[in-house]
Amino acid sequence: MKKIIKFIESLKGELVSTRRKLHKYPELGFEEVRTSQQVVNFLTELGLEVEQKEETGVVGLLDCGQGPTVALRADMDALPISEQTEVSYKSSHQGVMHACGHDGHMAILLETAKVLVEFRDQLSGKVKFIFQPAEEGPGGALPLIEAGVLESVDNIFGLHINNQLTTGVIGVQPKAASAAADELDLIIKGDSGHASTPHQGVDAIVIASQVITALQNIISRQVNPHQAAVINIGTIKGGYRRNVIADKVKLTGTVRTTEPNLREFMPERIEQIVEGITINQGASYELDYNFGYPVLINSSSLVDELSTVIESIPYVEELRYLSQSSLGAEDFAYYLEQVPGVFFRLGAAKPSEDYYSAHHPKFNFDEEALKIGVALFVYLVFYKLS
Amino acid sequence: MKKIIKFIESLKGELVSTRRKLHKYPELGFEEVRTSQQVVNFLTELGLEVEQKEETGVVGLLDCGQGPTVALRADMDALPISEQTEVSYKSSHQGVMHACGHDGHMAILLETAKVLVEFRDQLSGKVKFIFQPAEEGPGGALPLIEAGVLESVDNIFGLHINNQLTTGVIGVQPKAASAAADELDLIIKGDSGHASTPHQGVDAIVIASQVITALQNIISRQVNPHQAAVINIGTIKGGYRRNVIADKVKLTGTVRTTEPNLREFMPERIEQIVEGITINQGASYELDYNFGYPVLINSSSLVDELSTVIESIPYVEELRYLSQSSLGAEDFAYYLEQVPGVFFRLGAAKPSEDYYSAHHPKFNFDEEALKIGVALFVYLVFYKLS
Amino acid sequence: MKKIIKFIESLKGELVSTRRKLHKYPELGFEEVRTSQQVVNFLTELGLEVEQKEETGVVGLLDCGQGPTVALRADMDALPISEQTEVSYKSSHQGVMHACGHDGHMAILLETAKVLVEFRDQLSGKVKFIFQPAEEGPGGALPLIEAGVLESVDNIFGLHINNQLTTGVIGVQPKAASAAADELDLIIKGDSGHASTPHQGVDAIVIASQVITALQNIISRQVNPHQAAVINIGTIKGGYRRNVIADKVKLTGTVRTTEPNLREFMPERIEQIVEGITINQGASYELDYNFGYPVLINSSSLVDELSTVIESIPYVEELRYLSQSSLGAEDFAYYLEQVPGVFFRLGAAKPSEDYYSAHHPKFNFDEEALKIGVALFVYLVFYKLS
Amino acid sequence: MKKIIKFIESLKGELVSTRRKLHKYPELGFEEVRTSQQVVNFLTELGLEVEQKEETGVVGLLDCGQGPTVALRADMDALPISEQTEVSYKSSHQGVMHACGHDGHMAILLETAKVLVEFRDQLSGKVKFIFQPAEEGPGGALPLIEAGVLESVDNIFGLHINNQLTTGVIGVQPKAASAAADELDLIIKGDSGHASTPHQGVDAIVIASQVITALQNIISRQVNPHQAAVINIGTIKGGYRRNVIADKVKLTGTVRTTEPNLREFMPERIEQIVEGITINQGASYELDYNFGYPVLINSSSLVDELSTVIESIPYVEELRYLSQSSLGAEDFAYYLEQVPGVFFRLGAAKPSEDYYSAHHPKFNFDEEALKIGVALFVYLVFYKLS
Repeated sequence: MKKIIKFIESLKGELVSTRRKLHKYPELGFEEVRTSQQVVNFLTELGLEVEQKEETGVVGLLDCGQGPTVALRADMDALPISEQTEVSYKSSHQGVMHACGHDGHMAILLETAKVLVEFRDQLSGKVKFIFQPAEEGPGGALPLIEAGVLESVDNIFGLHINNQLTTGVIGVQPKAASAAADELDLIIKGDSGHASTPHQGVDAIVIASQVITALQNIISRQVNPHQAAVINIGTIKGGYRRNVIADKVKLTGTVRTTEPNLREFMPERIEQIVEGITINQGASYELDYNFGYPVLINSSSLVDELSTVIESIPYVEELRYLSQSSLGAEDFAYYLEQVPGVFFRLGAAKPSEDYYSAHHPKFNFDEEALKIGVALFVYLVFYKLS
Repeated sequence: MKKIIKFIESLKGELVSTRRKLHKYPELGFEEVRTSQQVVNFLTELGLEVEQKEETGVVGLLDCGQGPTVALRADMDALPISEQTEVSYKSSHQGVMHACGHDGHMAILLETAKVLVEFRDQLSGKVKFIFQPAEEGPGGALPLIEAGVLESVDNIFGLHINNQLTTGVIGVQPKAASAAADELDLIIKGDSGHASTPHQGVDAIVIASQVITALQNIISRQVNPHQAAVINIGTIKGGYRRNVIADKVKLTGTVRTTEPNLREFMPERIEQIVEGITINQGASYELDYNFGYPVLINSSSLVDELSTVIESIPYVEELRYLSQSSLGAEDFAYYLEQVPGVFFRLGAAKPSEDYYSAHHPKFNFDEEALKIGVALFVYLVFYKLS
Repeated sequence: MKKIIKFIESLKGELVSTRRKLHKYPELGFEEVRTSQQVVNFLTELGLEVEQKEETGVVGLLDCGQGPTVALRADMDALPISEQTEVSYKSSHQGVMHACGHDGHMAILLETAKVLVEFRDQLSGKVKFIFQPAEEGPGGALPLIEAGVLESVDNIFGLHINNQLTTGVIGVQPKAASAAADELDLIIKGDSGHASTPHQGVDAIVIASQVITALQNIISRQVNPHQAAVINIGTIKGGYRRNVIADKVKLTGTVRTTEPNLREFMPERIEQIVEGITINQGASYELDYNFGYPVLINSSSLVDELSTVIESIPYVEELRYLSQSSLGAEDFAYYLEQVPGVFFRLGAAKPSEDYYSAHHPKFNFDEEALKIGVALFVYLVFYKLS
Repeated sequence: MKKIIKFIESLKGELVSTRRKLHKYPELGFEEVRTSQQVVNFLTELGLEVEQKEETGVVGLLDCGQGPTVALRADMDALPISEQTEVSYKSSHQGVMHACGHDGHMAILLETAKVLVEFRDQLSGKVKFIFQPAEEGPGGALPLIEAGVLESVDNIFGLHINNQLTTGVIGVQPKAASAAADELDLIIKGDSGHASTPHQGVDAIVIASQVITALQNIISRQVNPHQAAVINIGTIKGGYRRNVIADKVKLTGTVRTTEPNLREFMPERIEQIVEGITINQGASYELDYNFGYPVLINSSSLVDELSTVIESIPYVEELRYLSQSSLGAEDFAYYLEQVPGVFFRLGAAKPSEDYYSAHHPKFNFDEEALKIGVALFVYLVFYKLS
């Protein structure tokens, strides 16, 4: 593998410039038109079979004959955030920013393709390069899967740049790695009337307050304390004027869980509480509960199997088992519902520096990590296809 | 009426000593054995027809021939309170005390009988003297009524000594004069378990807290703000040990209202709230709701009709219309459901003195008021029967 | 007074047309420009001294020499409501409507002036006709008082059309007749963060819910149950996105009371509850509490004094003492803080008809009541000035 | 080690009879007099140096010359539970039962001593056999440590019989293995009064309900969702009579946490909530918060180091890493604050059978596990001292 590492070393400059070019022109989910074209051009030049899928998605195929198929995935979309850094490659799209590292993910995957093309004669099997739109929502993974990108895929790998881990560390959760993120839209309906005659109305604000208070009990008393779960009511809005009884309150929220059983139990428990408090006080409700991204479940046997390979990568100082799953959400989870695979956390922080966390307008990371991402993907493919 | 007033004046000493003798030997509800005997003896000596009813109740009849029948009522029972006064006639029954003036009510009614017997030839009709047990609960009025004491009674009058009003004032509410006092017994049942696994139990203490909190909304949002109403949860008890999830909480309470419609609405509203919060969180409940004494409704036309007579009593400085009904309870209300009548507040406070309120271990009142009570009853009877 | 009644009878058609003209061109508070001009013209034609005050207010003076001064007041503003009636004189100002009878109040007061001018030689003293802007808020009474309209006024009278009382009934509360209406603006400030890490934020929505729930206890447990009081949180708004912890919730509300002591106690009690719940959970708050219109206190001695006069008006079938004060608000209260007077409820409902209540887009009333309003004002002035 | 296993096999009958003898005569914490004597006799017969410490504690020393010192600990106390099994060796002490397996722990440790004495010439160093009273509370570990039992001890090991794990499985948590169990005693003080005048009292029951409700927010919103924590209010008691405002409510509870930082944060957070709700509503409180057993932290390096040894025990089918720490409490935690060591879960369930959980009146376990416990201790000692 020495030659490979040497080749990767030679790509360092290109990795950085590819990433920066992508960073400068960020695009929102399902609007990644320019980004998509850049990816198509890059992969086409490498001689891959390239398909565009689901608006802005791109799938490249490297066919090295008989053998298993490994898929590698990068996400392409940016966030509706105004960049506040002072870097030379700062976003030139006002109000849009690659504040979550997807620019890095794409650069890594593009250069990984270059490396694998270079050493294709050592491989037996196929590699699919999946460039997916809209990971930040509403989600590009599911439409791509429905469009068939996982057909005949044996394993899939993905990664996320993580500036909480030092460069050189690769993190992995042996099982649940991100949370199910479900959505809650609740309207509580009372009955209006003048403030001076409360008994002639049904006060939706008072009832909503009781509902929100009672929802806390689900987390505090009805969930196994060892299971992470969150009910976040993020917005509330109701009423018209100070001297009128509010007849409607709208709430929106997100529910995060990491255990499928708990996830399924949530909508019913929430609705029971909402129903018990509204109906029995003369109010009514509309509850819309939508399951979003599922829990991301890494294949623990793959994690075990791959640990030696990963630790053999010269750049990798540590393969760290992260015990805590995050309560963030990641639609890579959908791929793992179909095909065994692993989602890695790519350490990307110089020890001496402080970084802003993902989704912050000043987010950035250590570009030294890019080559480690490439090496990780390349080693995994070589392990599986050689 | 001058002769009558003169006669009442002559009874002043006897009034005080009768009251004090009763005060010294207080007896609890339906245990007024000694008291009852004293009343029987007194009335019998006066030559009345005397009957004992419902254990310790006494009814005396003064028959003055053709004419209407007027009933006068005094209550006989004392309270389970240890007297803390220093008066010479302090209770000699440890832990029992006439702390609500019933001793005075009896003295007034006994001496009223004496006056009316003295002047019986000026009357046409009948006077019933009702000495009733257990006004403080569970209530002697209802059993006496069921035993027939109101048969052929045209009007009934009662009074209560009141040391918040100056001696010489007679208070009256033109309509509602005391509250309906209903009782609430609630058991909330969850499911036990060890503190370390809350999700395997149903915490009755947390649910009871929500119920109590939600009950406040009935008063704050569902009752006409112009109507007086109280829900008082007086006791709470639940759980076994600190590290065990409580599977049972018992609550007791009283509900006070002054409007019949509101009174009827209460048990359903309370049960809806209890049901909505318990059932929908996996708990259950037992609710026992008992209607107690009703609202005491004076006959407003009688109040109007009698005002001139009452104001003509030499002792009476003012007939005061009390606008606020009390939220206390009084079983005289039952008589008024059957027969028109009025319940008076007999001012019994020297202006210069501070008094402890009823039910206080240091309760007392101005004995000068006793003769005013006698005069009130006598004038009412003369107005009706002459 | 027969001649006067005859004259009033002759004005019936004019009363109706004056009212309808005003009704057709409603104007919001302090924007009553056209209305104001119409009033000025009318009074000027009658030969009164006319002054315009505080933007759109109008004060006319009828000077009949030596004697006391009586003020009569009408309010002029309409409401931001789209009229939904089908009457020929329906509002021609889209979104604005005389839905509270102020058109009637003005017509009555204008025609009252006409009557009094006609019979001015029978009067000794002065009559002030106060046409006040913005009764529905922010209030025109206070600025007019500050501008001196009550100088040398001995008594003031006002009335409000009331389609809950039959035409022919004049209602009056012997004391408190409307509520103090105070305003509450509360901002609860937490700390934002991602939904997945609730412990790193302070959830303003959860805390606001606790505050609203706890405010119910003031009404249910801390206010004398015989005193009417309302805390109405009319609007709530907070948070940005479902998956972000809300760091700010804004509440607006109104507080209604009828007892000055209770009114003063409210802001402190509310703030204590807000403070105890916010500060001690790491949140903060801004509470803005403004005293609005005070309790309207009629002069009970004037009510007594005037009852015979009022009952002598041929149109008046009943002078009804209303026991319950409304929890609505009326800025006539400010005049009564300065000068003894009475605010009347003018019955304006045909017994056979159903009416929509005030502030409803289909509000209307029985125009037969208009002449009764004129007669009431005229009789009161004659009683005082002849 | 074959000889040793053979010797252990020969002790199987004795192990069972020793356990059953202890089971039949259970004694509560610090009252283990008969038990203590039995242990002293057993160890003395083996020729150990035996000391009695802290009432009923027993410490035996096996001195095998130069080398490190290993301590092994068993707990001795039973529970105040009436046994409901039908076994021949059922508790003969009414109301007291070994329902937590301490009888087994003692039998294991006694027979371990016998084995080690038998093979003492193969050991270099010292073994301390600690028989500790009152593990179920108030705790015997701390007094024994203060009495010096850990002096010159290098490592300490303990185990707990666990009938949720199959016989042959040894469970171990690599770090936190039981929760900190802290105690909360809270009195909320209001002000009494009659139910009819709520505004003259301060209702401690309503305020306690708010406090309990607000405490839920600590768990739901203020604790990292990945950290297990429980606040269990186990008992509540307040008030005197249904028609009296409760002026006092007593709550007791336990707080369970597994992270020291979180543990320290709890009393302050709880007190802030209690203070904010009580003081600002005119109530007061007394909060007594006592830190109980700390979090039990196994030495993860020792766990790693010992895994090969443990897996080499012929009886052991699996050394299972338990990811979840229990929220139960164990005072072995105190030893581990002083000296590195490990606390094991000894699987003791036949796969075919259902068992009642610990503290249940029908608790029992598979006695086949006893010899595995002995082997575990013996292997650990041999690993360290040979």
